[in-house]
Amino acid sequence: MTTANVDTESALLSRQELRQRLQAVGDSRYHHRHPFHLRMHAGKLTRGQLQAWALNRYYYQSRIPIKDSLLLAKSEDPAFRRAWRKRILDHDGDKDGYGGVEKWIRLAEASGLNREQVIPCTGVLPGVRYAVDAYLALVRDSSLLVAVASSLTELFSRDLISLRMDQMRLHYPFLVPGLAYFEGRLTQAPEDADFAFDYVATHATTRKQQEQVIGALEAKCSILWAQLDAIDYAYVLPGNIPPGAFVPECA
Amino acid sequence: MTTANVDTESALLSRQELRQRLQAVGDSRYHHRHPFHLRMHAGKLTRGQLQAWALNRYYYQSRIPIKDSLLLAKSEDPAFRRAWRKRILDHDGDKDGYGGVEKWIRLAEASGLNREQVIPCTGVLPGVRYAVDAYLALVRDSSLLVAVASSLTELFSRDLISLRMDQMRLHYPFLVPGLAYFEGRLTQAPEDADFAFDYVATHATTRKQQEQVIGALEAKCSILWAQLDAIDYAYVLPGNIPPGAFVPECA
Repeated sequence: MTTANVDTESALLSRQELRQRLQAVGDSRYHHRHPFHLRMHAGKLTRGQLQAWALNRYYYQSRIPIKDSLLLAKSEDPAFRRAWRKRILDHDGDKDGYGGVEKWIRLAEASGLNREQVIPCTGVLPGVRYAVDAYLALVRDSSLLVAVASSLTELFSRDLISLRMDQMRLHYPFLVPGLAYFEGRLTQAPEDADFAFDYVATHATTRKQQEQVIGALEAKCSILWAQLDAIDYAYVLPGNIPPGAFVPECA
Repeated sequence: MTTANVDTESALLSRQELRQRLQAVGDSRYHHRHPFHLRMHAGKLTRGQLQAWALNRYYYQSRIPIKDSLLLAKSEDPAFRRAWRKRILDHDGDKDGYGGVEKWIRLAEASGLNREQVIPCTGVLPGVRYAVDAYLALVRDSSLLVAVASSLTELFSRDLISLRMDQMRLHYPFLVPGLAYFEGRLTQAPEDADFAFDYVATHATTRKQQEQVIGALEAKCSILWAQLDAIDYAYVLPGNIPPGAFVPECA
């Protein structure tokens, strides 16, 4: 083994190098590149396909505050918990009818679904459920460092959300009354990502831990990607909706 | 509520009625109906697609004895554990180079893969991994009754395996040297299924428990089905292999 190899495997990355490595993961693996999103942004999805996306992704949205509660439970530091607690507030709101989970229901309603079809999650694709549950298991069973790192997909979400809002206004104007969720995320996501990046950059104090951080981001990218795989498979091609899953009433 | 409704919800099913309900689940939800299997049995898969199937399903096969170990750990009854232990023996064998897991590797080799490509599971589709991990979580987090019931897909596997062996000999003769796994399962699966059905028929002593048994079989059918969804999506249509997953070298 040469000295160069040893360095590559053991030398601590600078804050900037770590940021670049994370960016490279996002560039190649974040779900902005997924065929279903490309089709969405090109205006090629039917209303029924948008309904299927909104209904399935509700399962993910509804699990975010549960994920953040699992993460809170891993920290022994009141200051960290105070800071992270914001995320639960963002999704659950201060009272009934507010917060990100409710806003996602409004998006689903704008697509033409009733909230009663959405909230029980009965029609969610098994593949989406397994991917989201894998996210909960990752956060529950990993170190706090890895759990925080798995949230770093938010480094890339602002650009995707901006593009999505523009394209939805253009191609699917019936969704406009449901865009409040994305409006909120435009400011929340970058704040959250900055906090999470600062946390991992500070607390990953060995190269091995830095590689764990990068691996956690890759794992999270796969979890987001696999949800769209399942939706794309079931709802874009005819005949692939699995037994028991949501069947759109409109085309 | 009428008396009839009360009966429907609370009356204990006879052994025969329970068997019929389970059969109905299998008829509608078992993966013998999945488009990927239909294509396989019609001789329409390429060698590369069969490789992708063998490599991905190896992750499932490799987790079966882990699942059975989790299940053993739930029982306090030496007689039950002695009976169920057979399954671990079937998959792990008595010594290196024997058992169902090894036989599955031989099937993958017959498809043209090296065992070094298969055993580390690095190229497995995330969607397959999440589905299989959901099976482990189901067994780990449920009652022994539900865990045993989730194995009842073996009630239906003999017919599927018989058909598969015939069609493989016909359409994919290069796989013939790898068919020992299925040969073994032709006798193992029905024995295992008989034991498991007898167990749930005896130990589900309320209608609620009987419905849990039926629900567990539905859940397991979804887990098998979702694995094929992921494989079908990634390897039958061009451009859908997710980042990091196995890419066949041949068509």
